[in-house]
Amino acid sequence: MNPSFHTIGIIAKTQEQRLGHILEALIGHLQHHQRRILLDDSVLPWLDDTSAGEPVTRAHMAAEADLAIVVGGDGTFLGAARTLVDAEVPLLGVNAGRLGFLVDVSPHEMLGRLDEILSGLYVEDRRSMLHARLMRGDDVVAAQDALNDVVMHIRDAVRMIEFDTWINGRFVNTQRADGMVVATPTGSTAYALSGGGPILSPCLEAVVMVPICPHGLSNRPLVVPAGNRIEIAVNEHSRTLAQVAFDGQDTFDMEPLDRIVIEPKPRKLRLIHPTGYDYLQILRVKLGWGEQP
Amino acid sequence: MNPSFHTIGIIAKTQEQRLGHILEALIGHLQHHQRRILLDDSVLPWLDDTSAGEPVTRAHMAAEADLAIVVGGDGTFLGAARTLVDAEVPLLGVNAGRLGFLVDVSPHEMLGRLDEILSGLYVEDRRSMLHARLMRGDDVVAAQDALNDVVMHIRDAVRMIEFDTWINGRFVNTQRADGMVVATPTGSTAYALSGGGPILSPCLEAVVMVPICPHGLSNRPLVVPAGNRIEIAVNEHSRTLAQVAFDGQDTFDMEPLDRIVIEPKPRKLRLIHPTGYDYLQILRVKLGWGEQP
Amino acid sequence: MNPSFHTIGIIAKTQEQRLGHILEALIGHLQHHQRRILLDDSVLPWLDDTSAGEPVTRAHMAAEADLAIVVGGDGTFLGAARTLVDAEVPLLGVNAGRLGFLVDVSPHEMLGRLDEILSGLYVEDRRSMLHARLMRGDDVVAAQDALNDVVMHIRDAVRMIEFDTWINGRFVNTQRADGMVVATPTGSTAYALSGGGPILSPCLEAVVMVPICPHGLSNRPLVVPAGNRIEIAVNEHSRTLAQVAFDGQDTFDMEPLDRIVIEPKPRKLRLIHPTGYDYLQILRVKLGWGEQP
Amino acid sequence: MNPSFHTIGIIAKTQEQRLGHILEALIGHLQHHQRRILLDDSVLPWLDDTSAGEPVTRAHMAAEADLAIVVGGDGTFLGAARTLVDAEVPLLGVNAGRLGFLVDVSPHEMLGRLDEILSGLYVEDRRSMLHARLMRGDDVVAAQDALNDVVMHIRDAVRMIEFDTWINGRFVNTQRADGMVVATPTGSTAYALSGGGPILSPCLEAVVMVPICPHGLSNRPLVVPAGNRIEIAVNEHSRTLAQVAFDGQDTFDMEPLDRIVIEPKPRKLRLIHPTGYDYLQILRVKLGWGEQP
Repeated sequence: MNPSFHTIGIIAKTQEQRLGHILEALIGHLQHHQRRILLDDSVLPWLDDTSAGEPVTRAHMAAEADLAIVVGGDGTFLGAARTLVDAEVPLLGVNAGRLGFLVDVSPHEMLGRLDEILSGLYVEDRRSMLHARLMRGDDVVAAQDALNDVVMHIRDAVRMIEFDTWINGRFVNTQRADGMVVATPTGSTAYALSGGGPILSPCLEAVVMVPICPHGLSNRPLVVPAGNRIEIAVNEHSRTLAQVAFDGQDTFDMEPLDRIVIEPKPRKLRLIHPTGYDYLQILRVKLGWGEQP
Repeated sequence: MNPSFHTIGIIAKTQEQRLGHILEALIGHLQHHQRRILLDDSVLPWLDDTSAGEPVTRAHMAAEADLAIVVGGDGTFLGAARTLVDAEVPLLGVNAGRLGFLVDVSPHEMLGRLDEILSGLYVEDRRSMLHARLMRGDDVVAAQDALNDVVMHIRDAVRMIEFDTWINGRFVNTQRADGMVVATPTGSTAYALSGGGPILSPCLEAVVMVPICPHGLSNRPLVVPAGNRIEIAVNEHSRTLAQVAFDGQDTFDMEPLDRIVIEPKPRKLRLIHPTGYDYLQILRVKLGWGEQP
Repeated sequence: MNPSFHTIGIIAKTQEQRLGHILEALIGHLQHHQRRILLDDSVLPWLDDTSAGEPVTRAHMAAEADLAIVVGGDGTFLGAARTLVDAEVPLLGVNAGRLGFLVDVSPHEMLGRLDEILSGLYVEDRRSMLHARLMRGDDVVAAQDALNDVVMHIRDAVRMIEFDTWINGRFVNTQRADGMVVATPTGSTAYALSGGGPILSPCLEAVVMVPICPHGLSNRPLVVPAGNRIEIAVNEHSRTLAQVAFDGQDTFDMEPLDRIVIEPKPRKLRLIHPTGYDYLQILRVKLGWGEQP
Repeated sequence: MNPSFHTIGIIAKTQEQRLGHILEALIGHLQHHQRRILLDDSVLPWLDDTSAGEPVTRAHMAAEADLAIVVGGDGTFLGAARTLVDAEVPLLGVNAGRLGFLVDVSPHEMLGRLDEILSGLYVEDRRSMLHARLMRGDDVVAAQDALNDVVMHIRDAVRMIEFDTWINGRFVNTQRADGMVVATPTGSTAYALSGGGPILSPCLEAVVMVPICPHGLSNRPLVVPAGNRIEIAVNEHSRTLAQVAFDGQDTFDMEPLDRIVIEPKPRKLRLIHPTGYDYLQILRVKLGWGEQP
């Protein structure tokens, strides 16, 4: 059996009660497996003794790590993904007690799963991401990746924005709504689902556009091929200001007539799962499909 | 036939292209009927000659008018309603070309309809309103009436708020969502409808609570008796700031732990409609029920 | 303390594994309290010894019982309610292990709750019902009560029916859909909820009309006062046959141009609950509002 | 310019008032272009003189035609597609006055569009279809193609069925609902849309599974790759009978424990459109996206 993942970065959720014990067990286990351990800033506050690993910057981790283990919730994972995807570092998610779509290893099974993964037994799952630019005229005001979604949304007032949408340069429609979510399959179970969107199978090469509280009742979620270029622009009739958020984490204010241009990110994110990983099983648990209402 | 409505106030939408002609025709017709005419500030920019009426403050209009005619859209009407309801001034709505739920008289039929109404032929329709207070501890930070809705909503970030709801002091639930709409029957066809709420018959003594993009898929619109006291409070676990909007017009920022207390307004709004008014006909037109998709 | 409910009928679900023990405990307890016990046909198969009670017809039970205890699920309760409402017999629901909206007493708390109820400590809750007639020309083809809902639905083929709706004689609209649910507040958490309807507070004097899979996306649930008369007729353009179901239990085939006329039932159903009954608590459990998704 | 489509079949809707004039104009124009014309049975009742064409069986048309022109609605087109797809005959749809998703050429533009198409100017659009088998144990009880959808649905009673679903042999969930729609992108704007499904871009290689009135509120539409094998089986706890419909046209009764197995049809349907065909334009018209509500 060929051991895998020699250098392993660790990233943690910054606001969570119970992480200390999980992180100590994790680090101890990686030491036992004689791995080199890189510690993200987010990990340091949780540890009494950091001598087992090397505190590093995120850029350093991206450059050196063969694997990054994210301990926390799906939100923590999203942030880590966006900083590590370009370096092609695979990510493994450990939840802090509640199963997530991305942090699918639970603390109580963590050590056994790690033994398998470090010995080369694991599933690799490549997820599509989005790359979006906020355009002001010809200027790129912001450019960001997103694993879940790019969301245009009202801000400051509770009043619809009016906006136009194009797919590959073809006009779709003008609508008035609170906003629009453009989500990957990974993001289809996050905000897009709350907005009434469908669930997309993670292996589907598609993107879903979900209007948020559309004024016109026939404005429905639209699923298009992942390769399509989607443009959204608040139009000149809109009296309300908008913002754009990437994975619900980085937010930029939009000015009138700003455009959001969303394209597939050429590079995919590498997720590592234990063997036996079953996306449908996670769906069943997360959506309560096992329980009879 | 006993002439009605001796003193008539006129209120107009401030941003609209076509109002000048409608207002001149309206004022000329009221002069012909020998009515005393009170002109709101919003009307003055549209008129070359204001000598036919008396420019007055809104408070003055509330004190003196037997009827107020609102020319514009439903938004204009909402603002007028909130300033005139306490003085029990009935309102008649004239739209600027596109039928509204509240501005149901169209310009081309306006003069004939006015003849009837001024001669006493009309329907009076009493609509329930809400009275809401924004509480910070024991302090009332804001207190407002609403004809359509009271909306608690996220601001600044695109991230759910977590809030608790009580009805008549009984706990309903804790949910995470973009917000919550509490709407009257009149407001049930406005923002609440975009959020997935039902249509409430205008004569129903009820209020509908519609969560906006709820994270939990079983959080559904809830219709309760109009007399109930509804309280909503962003709870201490919420990491996102909220705002509260009254009829989508007046907006107040909320601080953590602020509470919104919503009760029925004891006084109802008096709407004047031409005879033959049919709410269901307006629904059919506004929702396109006549057209086959 | 004045003892209550001298003569008590018992009705049970006919297809359920675990009822024998519950029924024996229940009957033993009522004997201990020296009640006269009337046994419905549905109870007899569960008992080794029926000497503790008197086997009676449902009509006999309606005439004699001061209280009927229904052991089973909400479906069993619905059937019992429709046979006992006219005699004004109050009903108490005991579930067979899974909380229902109507069978809200659980087996493990049953005996203690009964002690209280038989001593006069209980809450009485009056629920509105519907009375519906299936009309063929001027003939009444069927007439039934419903505690939950009256449903018109396609049959035989998976193809929309086209139908017209009137409220109090006023035309609402023509729509094409799989059907229409007209539900009481009690029924709003049953089939109407699956169809996208809102939850109506049980004390609300209202009825909700929920189209099932409407072809027109703007056909939305409509909540009207309970006193309204609702008429639904499959129209002459419809190529599909329909059926009407009362509480999902009694079903009648409709012929072209048949009309369903739905009115409030003047008599309300009397539900008995233990003290401390909280409808919102049941909603939280049944809809999983306590759980974080 | 190389003339195209020498032998052209014509198929018409059987119940429609206005087809005679359209068919006569169409046939006259094809004669003028010196095409060989094959007349489906459905066309004959509309013509006074059938000497311009050859009455043929559908099988004959499939064997001989280079193009089939369908005059009617989307329903007519669906039926034609299923009989001609295996022979790879391309289809052109002419509507009888109301734009369809499939019959996208209007009568008033028909002759000009035909000139272009017959001269070789057209767009070919290949649509995915489904192939479904109804299995009883190891027997294939029925096997059909579908361009829009395969629908499992309750019959005879208005009471949920309980069924299990698998994707590529992996268990998805057990749910109780009125049924399940499995739709192609083409079918996503038909029944699936009424059931709350998203719109799928016609070029997306995907299938959407939409539960109809699911009892569990977290049962949402699921979009999976077109290549997946979907199996649905009414389970042993279901007390209600089911049926399966292909494109809403052919319906088969299901027996308890029957399974529906749905796979992509290897052969795609060839649609012919005039140049300038814009799917988004058809969506805008059909869903009323141009109109402001």
